[in-house]
Amino acid sequence: MSKYLSSKYAALEPYTPGEQPKTQVLTKLNTNESPFPPMPEVIEAVRAEAERLQLYPDPDSTMLREAVAETLGVDPDMVICNNGSDETLYFAFLAYCDAETPAVFPKLSYGFYPVFADITGISFRDIPLKSDFSIDPEDYYDAKGTVFIANPNAPTGIPLSLSQIEGIVQHNPDNVVVIDEAYVDFGTESAVPLTKKYDNLLVIQTFSKSRSMAGMRLGYGIADPKIIADLNALRYSTNPYNIDRLAIAAGTASLRNDEVNREHCRTVMENRQYTVDQLKELGFEMTDSTANFIFVRHPGIGGDVLFRKLRERGVIIRHWDKPEINDYNRITIGSKEQMDILLREVRDILKEAGL
Amino acid sequence: MSKYLSSKYAALEPYTPGEQPKTQVLTKLNTNESPFPPMPEVIEAVRAEAERLQLYPDPDSTMLREAVAETLGVDPDMVICNNGSDETLYFAFLAYCDAETPAVFPKLSYGFYPVFADITGISFRDIPLKSDFSIDPEDYYDAKGTVFIANPNAPTGIPLSLSQIEGIVQHNPDNVVVIDEAYVDFGTESAVPLTKKYDNLLVIQTFSKSRSMAGMRLGYGIADPKIIADLNALRYSTNPYNIDRLAIAAGTASLRNDEVNREHCRTVMENRQYTVDQLKELGFEMTDSTANFIFVRHPGIGGDVLFRKLRERGVIIRHWDKPEINDYNRITIGSKEQMDILLREVRDILKEAGL
Repeated sequence: MSKYLSSKYAALEPYTPGEQPKTQVLTKLNTNESPFPPMPEVIEAVRAEAERLQLYPDPDSTMLREAVAETLGVDPDMVICNNGSDETLYFAFLAYCDAETPAVFPKLSYGFYPVFADITGISFRDIPLKSDFSIDPEDYYDAKGTVFIANPNAPTGIPLSLSQIEGIVQHNPDNVVVIDEAYVDFGTESAVPLTKKYDNLLVIQTFSKSRSMAGMRLGYGIADPKIIADLNALRYSTNPYNIDRLAIAAGTASLRNDEVNREHCRTVMENRQYTVDQLKELGFEMTDSTANFIFVRHPGIGGDVLFRKLRERGVIIRHWDKPEINDYNRITIGSKEQMDILLREVRDILKEAGL
Repeated sequence: MSKYLSSKYAALEPYTPGEQPKTQVLTKLNTNESPFPPMPEVIEAVRAEAERLQLYPDPDSTMLREAVAETLGVDPDMVICNNGSDETLYFAFLAYCDAETPAVFPKLSYGFYPVFADITGISFRDIPLKSDFSIDPEDYYDAKGTVFIANPNAPTGIPLSLSQIEGIVQHNPDNVVVIDEAYVDFGTESAVPLTKKYDNLLVIQTFSKSRSMAGMRLGYGIADPKIIADLNALRYSTNPYNIDRLAIAAGTASLRNDEVNREHCRTVMENRQYTVDQLKELGFEMTDSTANFIFVRHPGIGGDVLFRKLRERGVIIRHWDKPEINDYNRITIGSKEQMDILLREVRDILKEAGL
């Protein structure tokens, strides 16, 4: 830090993303990417658009918003596209939290929420999960703040039902409820249909997970047009050209062929069930995840030990050095081949440990 | 706006970017894009990287920062890459302005500066230009705030010399000076070498203009490593994956073949001289621009009239409806063919008006 940095950031602790190894690793199961390459139509769209890079993109990403709207059954003016879900979340923290309105979110959830609160200078209230790691929706009734809930939650993978989400939205009529659906496409019911019924609901989705485009940086928010207008006012006041030409082309192509994405999600869900069954046979305990990751522990081996031993064998998973989840690891569900490598190494590690 | 939007944004007036027409226009000279398509190496790099979009990018864009560093003769830890220059400017407003430290910039300059001040909730002091539209560097000595200067300035195109910039940096030892060099590559001396001498100087450049990549959204800042660390702390607290895989690949390829970009700049400078000479013959007056645009007026025809009449003929230039520059238009320097179309239509309009 320089001596010039504003004192308001003296205690800022930036978010730590999962490691992105610069060298090739055998099996990367740490940041919930898709095991499938982008579909040919996406690659083709990018390749065609590359010839027009000298021109600014459409700052309203009209073509892409129309494709999102059509895919989700909403109006285009209910859609804002951003440079990844994180940017949409950041705008939501800016727009709907201030000295009078804190942020309210689960104590164990996406680790970026408290960072967004810090960087935007607002206070937050984090509510503990139940002992089984699930969220009690009634904890968020009359929250007296802007509610942020990942559904399914991370890193647990546990979902709330649509009626539970609706209960939270109904019981916060004076505040915005943000539902972060980064992992919704692997077996969780989306709250997007509720955005047509409630003007205080913002649903955030991403192309990073189910649509094999983590490297493209593309996310979007769905909400009442007035909420979208708020977020666009912030976008136009920070970075109007936040979405590049290639992202607009790639995202549109992906949505125009969305059946391929849905088929990929079904495969990931099959691989999840396979991995869950195998790990349970090996004595692992875990939450009931509806995400493209699982959250597991083994009674006989520390979470950090398993993490480190897998890493030595070229398998990278995600571990947090936090007391309440120190026993656990989050494992991305990849291809069947990747899961078999994981399972082989896990079996070997357990055997070495005499388990 | 929704009723939920934080009251702190009640008076927010977002930035208005130049029009990006969704339909094909004959001659687009309104947002200072390059007339040259991206170079083949850039297109090829994008096309190859498109196959890896399912994986997150390197959040430190190491490969790209190394290419920037090598091109500019600085260390990689003196470089931060962002999603367009605007994002770098936004981070600089966040980092170096607060209740005690206002922003200080010319009254006529990049129209986004006051918007950045508003969105970040800080006050600013805007200093009038001299009557010839030039900046008096001494006006920025001991500025008691963070100085933002576009060099060359926009929309005038008038540059400060390197020694004038150094004077401003030297006379603000307790504050950061930000030099926005979006248009530096068309005949202005860059302040990048000074970043090795002064720890309070941040130089911002972009791939949008001289490198034919406005559609890719890629910019960077050059400064002392501590300044870069400040900006990275903010980046990691808002959007760590702000640069996508394709931008990293495209930017690196562009820099590895920078002689092509320099040749393009030389051509634009030739076309600028040609256009200036022709317009002066037609009675136009203008500033001495070292940018890829010119700032012109004609004593016989209002700026808004010329703008509107050119638009009817399929030539789009930039006009601002502000009293102090209402007579003027900013015209991007494009290809020789584009400039000949502009000149033909201007001649025709003047003739129609009996001038």
